[in-house]
Amino acid sequence: MVEITDTLGDQSITRQDGRKVDQLRPVRITRHFTDVPEGSVLIECGNTRVMCTATFTAGVPRWRQDSGLGWVTAEYAMLPRATKERTDRESVKGKVGGRTHEISRLVGRCLRGVVDMQALGENQVQIDCDVLQADGGTRTASITGAYVALVDAMHWAEANGHIASADAVLKDVVSAVSVGVIDGTAMLDLPYPEDCRAMTDMNVAMTGSGTFIEIQGTAEHRPFNRSELNTLLDLAEKGNKQLQAAQQAALAQD
Amino acid sequence: MVEITDTLGDQSITRQDGRKVDQLRPVRITRHFTDVPEGSVLIECGNTRVMCTATFTAGVPRWRQDSGLGWVTAEYAMLPRATKERTDRESVKGKVGGRTHEISRLVGRCLRGVVDMQALGENQVQIDCDVLQADGGTRTASITGAYVALVDAMHWAEANGHIASADAVLKDVVSAVSVGVIDGTAMLDLPYPEDCRAMTDMNVAMTGSGTFIEIQGTAEHRPFNRSELNTLLDLAEKGNKQLQAAQQAALAQD
Amino acid sequence: MVEITDTLGDQSITRQDGRKVDQLRPVRITRHFTDVPEGSVLIECGNTRVMCTATFTAGVPRWRQDSGLGWVTAEYAMLPRATKERTDRESVKGKVGGRTHEISRLVGRCLRGVVDMQALGENQVQIDCDVLQADGGTRTASITGAYVALVDAMHWAEANGHIASADAVLKDVVSAVSVGVIDGTAMLDLPYPEDCRAMTDMNVAMTGSGTFIEIQGTAEHRPFNRSELNTLLDLAEKGNKQLQAAQQAALAQD
Amino acid sequence: MVEITDTLGDQSITRQDGRKVDQLRPVRITRHFTDVPEGSVLIECGNTRVMCTATFTAGVPRWRQDSGLGWVTAEYAMLPRATKERTDRESVKGKVGGRTHEISRLVGRCLRGVVDMQALGENQVQIDCDVLQADGGTRTASITGAYVALVDAMHWAEANGHIASADAVLKDVVSAVSVGVIDGTAMLDLPYPEDCRAMTDMNVAMTGSGTFIEIQGTAEHRPFNRSELNTLLDLAEKGNKQLQAAQQAALAQD
Amino acid sequence: MVEITDTLGDQSITRQDGRKVDQLRPVRITRHFTDVPEGSVLIECGNTRVMCTATFTAGVPRWRQDSGLGWVTAEYAMLPRATKERTDRESVKGKVGGRTHEISRLVGRCLRGVVDMQALGENQVQIDCDVLQADGGTRTASITGAYVALVDAMHWAEANGHIASADAVLKDVVSAVSVGVIDGTAMLDLPYPEDCRAMTDMNVAMTGSGTFIEIQGTAEHRPFNRSELNTLLDLAEKGNKQLQAAQQAALAQD
Amino acid sequence: MVEITDTLGDQSITRQDGRKVDQLRPVRITRHFTDVPEGSVLIECGNTRVMCTATFTAGVPRWRQDSGLGWVTAEYAMLPRATKERTDRESVKGKVGGRTHEISRLVGRCLRGVVDMQALGENQVQIDCDVLQADGGTRTASITGAYVALVDAMHWAEANGHIASADAVLKDVVSAVSVGVIDGTAMLDLPYPEDCRAMTDMNVAMTGSGTFIEIQGTAEHRPFNRSELNTLLDLAEKGNKQLQAAQQAALAQD
Repeated sequence: MVEITDTLGDQSITRQDGRKVDQLRPVRITRHFTDVPEGSVLIECGNTRVMCTATFTAGVPRWRQDSGLGWVTAEYAMLPRATKERTDRESVKGKVGGRTHEISRLVGRCLRGVVDMQALGENQVQIDCDVLQADGGTRTASITGAYVALVDAMHWAEANGHIASADAVLKDVVSAVSVGVIDGTAMLDLPYPEDCRAMTDMNVAMTGSGTFIEIQGTAEHRPFNRSELNTLLDLAEKGNKQLQAAQQAALAQD
Repeated sequence: MVEITDTLGDQSITRQDGRKVDQLRPVRITRHFTDVPEGSVLIECGNTRVMCTATFTAGVPRWRQDSGLGWVTAEYAMLPRATKERTDRESVKGKVGGRTHEISRLVGRCLRGVVDMQALGENQVQIDCDVLQADGGTRTASITGAYVALVDAMHWAEANGHIASADAVLKDVVSAVSVGVIDGTAMLDLPYPEDCRAMTDMNVAMTGSGTFIEIQGTAEHRPFNRSELNTLLDLAEKGNKQLQAAQQAALAQD
Repeated sequence: MVEITDTLGDQSITRQDGRKVDQLRPVRITRHFTDVPEGSVLIECGNTRVMCTATFTAGVPRWRQDSGLGWVTAEYAMLPRATKERTDRESVKGKVGGRTHEISRLVGRCLRGVVDMQALGENQVQIDCDVLQADGGTRTASITGAYVALVDAMHWAEANGHIASADAVLKDVVSAVSVGVIDGTAMLDLPYPEDCRAMTDMNVAMTGSGTFIEIQGTAEHRPFNRSELNTLLDLAEKGNKQLQAAQQAALAQD
Repeated sequence: MVEITDTLGDQSITRQDGRKVDQLRPVRITRHFTDVPEGSVLIECGNTRVMCTATFTAGVPRWRQDSGLGWVTAEYAMLPRATKERTDRESVKGKVGGRTHEISRLVGRCLRGVVDMQALGENQVQIDCDVLQADGGTRTASITGAYVALVDAMHWAEANGHIASADAVLKDVVSAVSVGVIDGTAMLDLPYPEDCRAMTDMNVAMTGSGTFIEIQGTAEHRPFNRSELNTLLDLAEKGNKQLQAAQQAALAQD
Repeated sequence: MVEITDTLGDQSITRQDGRKVDQLRPVRITRHFTDVPEGSVLIECGNTRVMCTATFTAGVPRWRQDSGLGWVTAEYAMLPRATKERTDRESVKGKVGGRTHEISRLVGRCLRGVVDMQALGENQVQIDCDVLQADGGTRTASITGAYVALVDAMHWAEANGHIASADAVLKDVVSAVSVGVIDGTAMLDLPYPEDCRAMTDMNVAMTGSGTFIEIQGTAEHRPFNRSELNTLLDLAEKGNKQLQAAQQAALAQD
Repeated sequence: MVEITDTLGDQSITRQDGRKVDQLRPVRITRHFTDVPEGSVLIECGNTRVMCTATFTAGVPRWRQDSGLGWVTAEYAMLPRATKERTDRESVKGKVGGRTHEISRLVGRCLRGVVDMQALGENQVQIDCDVLQADGGTRTASITGAYVALVDAMHWAEANGHIASADAVLKDVVSAVSVGVIDGTAMLDLPYPEDCRAMTDMNVAMTGSGTFIEIQGTAEHRPFNRSELNTLLDLAEKGNKQLQAAQQAALAQD
């Protein structure tokens, strides 16, 4: 188990934004970002900003009815000018693109990984992650922020008598972070310019107990070996611990 | 011409949110809300919050080429949980709905109404208005906020040598406000609960010189006569003057 | 109140098609244009020709069920060669365009403005306006023609025992006309060539009692002031009175 | 070769609408039905009414460029209330249905069958057939009417110097008619109620020289044998001769 | 009636692939091509290869409920590299093309033509024909192969107690073959290179009793007369008899 | 490094299909499965059967032009009856689903991971993976099969002078296999019934040199720890070595 005060990786390197290789960007989690949703969170990881809402609805989709189980889904999207070049709206194009689909599914799986569907009962939570500004790591920020929105929604549901206990639904904490190999060096939490140059890029979602919910490592540009994988997972573990501390701090406030 | 310090309408009435019939909701305009776009504004009118960005692109669509003229378009959308009930994403439904189309076109016309296309040259501005939270008046807030984003984008374009003069492009100021008749009383700037009960509902976009760019009055529930129309236009004029003062104040800051 | 025999505007001007500024194009309303629909009308305003049908269906959409109220919707479309240049079919493009959406919604609101939904009961009327030939004013012709089709459909519904009384459903008459400012002169009922040159363009739907159901004034090319607005509304009132006379004459025939 | 004054089939039978088995419904072909298209025809076969326009455009689609050859396509559609029950618009559904596709392709092939693409040169004709009222035989009426619109468009193109000779382009006449077996009896030109009951249904497009361009016989309900086929083809030949006489008569007028 | 050992057409001609004008390409029908479907057949006609599956589902679509009748539909598609040039996927394009629609409908009609819907009861069969390799005649191969898959599905349904008798459902055999006129000579079973050069192209679906279920003859390039039609039908009859022998042989195996 | 003759995992367990936990299903790779594509492979892993084609096209998409680099993409799809219950076609639904998008992107990344884009030059390879029968592991079978099709396409391209050297393009071998934890036991190559019950499910794409190109581990049902991850990766390494032997064997044949 990695102590989070320990340093990891090559400490002699200073990154373009002044960070060490094992350092997260500043994280800011704002709860109740908007008033209406059952959970509404703005998460900022460096310049990446994602608005995450959790919508609680009594009842489940038809295919899930009479199972006694709940359901959690997620949708991810980017506002047109989240990016340097404007991206055309998928609504206007008339179809959801592959990247959007891929990330939406990832976010959904990660949150379902910490939800006890029995305890949720026949209720549904819809997570919406809308990227206001993108500077790398939008999918991992979405997961980390969405978890906080989910917690708020569960407390709302408990307070409103829809579920017996928010704590029973939430089996564990989940957060996610990106890691990657840049010019042969493993680094934590890649902003967009690093992400573009990464030879290996990995997104790691972990629980509070230090287990994995999702690992997605991709190496279009140069395959990685076991030892590199282990370094990346160490970095991810360190980053996730810190993100979970930030989640907890946000949830402790009222 | 109405002096904006004057009162208008029935001053004996106090609205649900404590306002007089001729009073705007608090307006807050935040420039540089995000870092990347040429213009990026968050406008808040009461609980309504819209993020407006202006994207400047050199060149115009094919049908406009070799005309010497620029072009300005707008797209409006709501995030799924801008509303009390979650609204399905139009990207997921695979089509843009009628209301969205109608508002996008309205915003575009209003901004084009104050732009000198000759002075803009063969360049394009794309306005994006994304509603983070909806409490009535999202289309008029979009116009008012988008104008400020447009101004910032024009200054960016001047500073970067794309246009000769931002001032030459911007022929006038534009803002918009809603007015309506509730239970027989004309009122300014309707929040959602009033909007629902309005017998007549009108959106009025005006220039700084007090002329009209767009009037859209609709009376599905009870037609209105000339005298009611005149009262509504007086209220709209007062509201727009105040909104334009807020725009100016925001633009005066650096 | 304007007497319809009075003249309005600058009588010294003769328009390209020989009309005075306050003169409508010839209107022809043919009922029972096709045999099958509950209401079927061909309206011709100059060279503009729109086929308007009204479909009566017992029952209402799900969201309206058990309300005791009826519903009226409208869809507008142009045949490909209604225009000088062929327009691609929206069915082939796979999506309904913004202009089509905007007009469909306008026509629907105008007709709902004169229908007593209680008296209609849980029944639905679907209006279809298909432009066979377009020469300006297709949306206002659609409203004027659709009203006549609606009346026929209501009589059919009464005769067939679906509603108690057609007269109870129809609270008032509705017609619509376009007005605009061309080269500084306010004019009534703009054909396409004038419409293109209009600095201000306004569509005005009015009831038989002279009140407004919808005002849509747009001034992309030059804003208009209160006094111009008043002149335009006077012209619209005169035009609508004459259109309503034409509606009545058509309905008087058998 | 069948003489068109001869009678065919069982003359003892009188059909629901009073016709003999070998009798066409009344045909009416109105040229210049609308003013704008290069060819615009309303064809009425009994209660079936189809508006057929031919749009001439200089130039061909990319895949046909530099071939020296022209191109002819067709699109068929039904207005929503052409039918007894209202049909939802394909534009609103966002896709063109199978029946529409099938008929559009049929109409296109039939017209191409009489066009000399070399003589047409690199020009395109787009045929649009919009059914105003449907009472059986809409696809064959479309072909018959579209041919007349095509002829008008070719004369327009000749007069405007786009093609050398309309006569050179038009290799032959084409018309089409439906035939079918109802309760064991072969009949010509089926209206909707007969069409529904037909055991075999066949659409036959023929040239003026009596040859076939398209035969589409379908027998979902009871297969047919060679002898029945021959009777049906005899009826179709008789019908097409009469339709071609109607086309000629319409084209003879000015 | 043509004896299938007889020769037909001009026997002096040898085709590019060595066949006589009245000769089929080699046919191979493989049942149980995949394990899961109720019927699964690979049919190979020369280089054309189509996988045909029949899916049996208890119950019918809503519009057919409580009729006591079953339903049979079909969908046809080509894999992207069935053809020499890769064809874009219709799923990616977001719409089914006209050719696909046309063929799907044809296959469905042909199979329905030999099914007793009463005997099928309120059950549905969905035929899927996916072209693995295309060398002409894919639609007729689909029909011929799908019939065999249908028979297997009916036996499955009988064995599983869904229908009383497979034999009662299957009123007759159906197969289909293409014929055409190449350089003035009528030929049977056209591969792609011949299909391209065909002046007349005809697809003929016949029952085991020698009657027609569907005839689709098209002559974009040169119309055909009665005598040519008769030769083509003779060839089709011969081809279909041989295809039906191949179907029977396949079905005889276990 | 794991020797592939070694055994891994709990050897006392026998799986439902008789395999040991570290045993692959039988693999069969058929090259030249169809005749037309530059590479065409049928891969069978147990009952899973995927047809993989590689289409070589000279030139690259517009965004890649003048880069001197090639491009490789992939599309994955399932035939409707690949599965026990028929799956509706995405072409008919009008949109590509999230799962399809996700897998298509995965396959594309894996193949790009072993391609030297410089050596490919400005040429494009499109991989199509169509699942004829699905019994778990369709995405990993797609990758393994597609690699063989890619090799064939590269040899075709070399032989036809489009690229200098197939060997220069292919930097390494790639194959993929699924591993998972079933009832607490790590297992290799999961068929559908195991896949459904897996608590953790991981797809691992590896090169011939034993490095990773893609790791996608997901644990919706029970998170996994480092030690489980290591066991899974050992199994995946063993499986991939054997799959690469099968690839090599297939490629050795002519």
